[in-house]
Amino acid sequence: MSVIPAVDQAAEAQVRADDRTHVFHSWSAQALIDPPPVAGGSGATFWDYQGNSYLDFSSQLVNLNLGHQHPDLVAAIVKQAERLATIQPSMANDVRGELARLISEVSPEGFTKVFFTNGGADANENAVRMARLVTGKRKVLSMYRSYHGNTTTAISLTGDPRRWANEPADGSVAKFFGPYAYRSAFHAESEEQESERALAHLEQTIILEGASTIGAIIIESVVGSNGVLVPPPGYLRGVRALCDKYNIMWIADEVMVGFGRTGQWWSFQADGATPDLITFAKGVNSGYVPLGGVVISDRIASHFDTVVFPGGLTYSGHPLACAVGVATFEVFRRDGILERVNDLGERIVAPRLAQMAERHPSVGEVRGRGLFWAIELVKNKDTREPLVPFNASGADAAPMNAFAAAAKKAGVWPFIHFNRTHIAPPLIISEDDLIRGLDVIDEALNVADGYTE
Amino acid sequence: MSVIPAVDQAAEAQVRADDRTHVFHSWSAQALIDPPPVAGGSGATFWDYQGNSYLDFSSQLVNLNLGHQHPDLVAAIVKQAERLATIQPSMANDVRGELARLISEVSPEGFTKVFFTNGGADANENAVRMARLVTGKRKVLSMYRSYHGNTTTAISLTGDPRRWANEPADGSVAKFFGPYAYRSAFHAESEEQESERALAHLEQTIILEGASTIGAIIIESVVGSNGVLVPPPGYLRGVRALCDKYNIMWIADEVMVGFGRTGQWWSFQADGATPDLITFAKGVNSGYVPLGGVVISDRIASHFDTVVFPGGLTYSGHPLACAVGVATFEVFRRDGILERVNDLGERIVAPRLAQMAERHPSVGEVRGRGLFWAIELVKNKDTREPLVPFNASGADAAPMNAFAAAAKKAGVWPFIHFNRTHIAPPLIISEDDLIRGLDVIDEALNVADGYTE
Repeated sequence: MSVIPAVDQAAEAQVRADDRTHVFHSWSAQALIDPPPVAGGSGATFWDYQGNSYLDFSSQLVNLNLGHQHPDLVAAIVKQAERLATIQPSMANDVRGELARLISEVSPEGFTKVFFTNGGADANENAVRMARLVTGKRKVLSMYRSYHGNTTTAISLTGDPRRWANEPADGSVAKFFGPYAYRSAFHAESEEQESERALAHLEQTIILEGASTIGAIIIESVVGSNGVLVPPPGYLRGVRALCDKYNIMWIADEVMVGFGRTGQWWSFQADGATPDLITFAKGVNSGYVPLGGVVISDRIASHFDTVVFPGGLTYSGHPLACAVGVATFEVFRRDGILERVNDLGERIVAPRLAQMAERHPSVGEVRGRGLFWAIELVKNKDTREPLVPFNASGADAAPMNAFAAAAKKAGVWPFIHFNRTHIAPPLIISEDDLIRGLDVIDEALNVADGYTE
Repeated sequence: MSVIPAVDQAAEAQVRADDRTHVFHSWSAQALIDPPPVAGGSGATFWDYQGNSYLDFSSQLVNLNLGHQHPDLVAAIVKQAERLATIQPSMANDVRGELARLISEVSPEGFTKVFFTNGGADANENAVRMARLVTGKRKVLSMYRSYHGNTTTAISLTGDPRRWANEPADGSVAKFFGPYAYRSAFHAESEEQESERALAHLEQTIILEGASTIGAIIIESVVGSNGVLVPPPGYLRGVRALCDKYNIMWIADEVMVGFGRTGQWWSFQADGATPDLITFAKGVNSGYVPLGGVVISDRIASHFDTVVFPGGLTYSGHPLACAVGVATFEVFRRDGILERVNDLGERIVAPRLAQMAERHPSVGEVRGRGLFWAIELVKNKDTREPLVPFNASGADAAPMNAFAAAAKKAGVWPFIHFNRTHIAPPLIISEDDLIRGLDVIDEALNVADGYTE
């Protein structure tokens, strides 16, 4: 790391004072948090005002695919800001159209049009809206252990505890179990069996909820915050077949895993399956400017050729956001980002995590693809009891907090969710930094080992 | 206007081709629109690729309060992009905290904390979430003739036809009639009577919907797209009193009218009333970077001191967006924006619109405040029959389309909604341009006059 952060106590004190007094934070009890003031970032690293720097192993909220302050993305912002910062959605704009074309070009054949939103939640809301209107069927199926956003329908789709305090919300959502071989809901003993049984369960759910009532099934192509659950081979193709059989739209939520996180443009491409709607955000421009959207199959788009689409937003197709998206495509292609994600994942991450799984009694399973991996921590490898309870907080979460503190102390900012840490660095991380970060995680796992039984 | 737009047919052809092939547009039947390619903008003007320029009398979607390409806002984007484009919401950041402090400082006493979102829809969704959790009551009352956004709860709150195709959505919303003296739902004959009767109607609605079930009432402080309906004196104070009486949270939707549009920081301030939650977007940074949020009264914020707030989003408090917000405050103060809005509104717009109302048989009423006015067009001044039917489209909308075409031909881009045109130019418009634009509107009204009976 070439950047040496300066110590600046006065600046930190001001940042902390403003933050603690005036900023209301997401997903938090406001008096029980102490948000760390961040002074700057570069590439895979960010730093505070105390001279500490951290390798960002969570890419912020798994959005910073091209890292902090990528010079090409910064240049794109500067250039577009000086040309035309914003223009309303009902007009045509060069970078808006160019980004839509670029996204269409990396999508499956027959995905021509893009509807832009501000982020992932409203992308999912609008995808559901399209599916409902095209099919004339209102119900949506989504998975337990999923996250789809925080607006009313998006949080209803969400299959993790963030939904609970918001219920009841959209009443036309039902949940099913997805594949999760390590903790199979279907008592499967192999990946093949997990896939088959998960599909049989999904079909049973469709039948019992009523195929005639179901407009869409939404699935994170690789489940993100809830566990880096890569679907077993054939699962997504099976979902496609069920959707065809019952006239249901498959919405592929690629908000976290699109744009290279798992080594493809879209993660569903790894299974050779094609959805009806694709939602994205985060990696499309690394979150440098808020942006999300829906890539729409022609069958669905054409429904709205002469019928008004009843959705929209002031910042749809925001030029500043789109300009960073266009630059993202240029960087991906010039620097072979997809190729390096696949290479680093297979050559560096996979074997090193396998070694950790062998070495540490606390590591129950490692799994993932590309630069998106989970290390699932357990009290006991045989019983697979999680190192901390589901949705643990406070004292219950102590073992994970101790692990995280050890990683941070050694200069790595880890992604923590329940009993897992995820490996999700910026896709531009250097090989040296990646190895150094994995070594820190490896060392910090010794702390987790102390909580095993 | 000092900028002479260049003609560039090739660039326009590319923009049009990408747009028509790949961009899916808000609130539209995709094959029936022809979005105009925009090449650039400056101040109150934007231009196409054909050498035509337009005075922007709708401030894009009434968000561009400081106009196109304001040098201070552009400089703020450039500076922040080069410092730190983004950082996740769980960390503390200098411009995020600074903007929250600045917003708190112009809000009523006891509004200390700000929750940032991406835009107005998710601001309203999160305000409703807070009100529901604080009161333990789920139902929300909102007005007919209102717009609150396009995500599930926001569109349910919306009292205009954009809601219809999305129903049923959030089932815990009920509608009431707000004050609209020109077309009084209460057969009132004066502003005072309209205010009294609208409040009596609201109280009846509260009683019949069940005060014990109602957590919030959401009101645009001045109704925006649905008519620039300025509440009569005392109405908002009456809403405050009813909310106190029945333990209901008043959410002031200031998405369109906050940040100076009507001459105050917050439009509710004109009535001397104080809500419980304030939502904003648009004018906070003129939409140069997507940003919205909720200003939270201490009573509500403190509820979440030790209880987790169950909402959040990846781009909450986005540094790039917040930096433009900070610059917005600097410009407002240095250039006396609020003062000039009040001055131009009273000295230029009000008397000229009054003259138009007198001169044109098609002008039923003019109303507004600051730089936000409506001209309501009618077939007949006595019957007050609207010039086009409610929610008119196609041939039914021909009179308004003819009026709009005449304005555009003369170089003014008007805001059109149903049978109204709104006067909503950037707040930095020069006095000369404002007068020139009003003259164009005046002239175009001759076209509307041709459709009167």
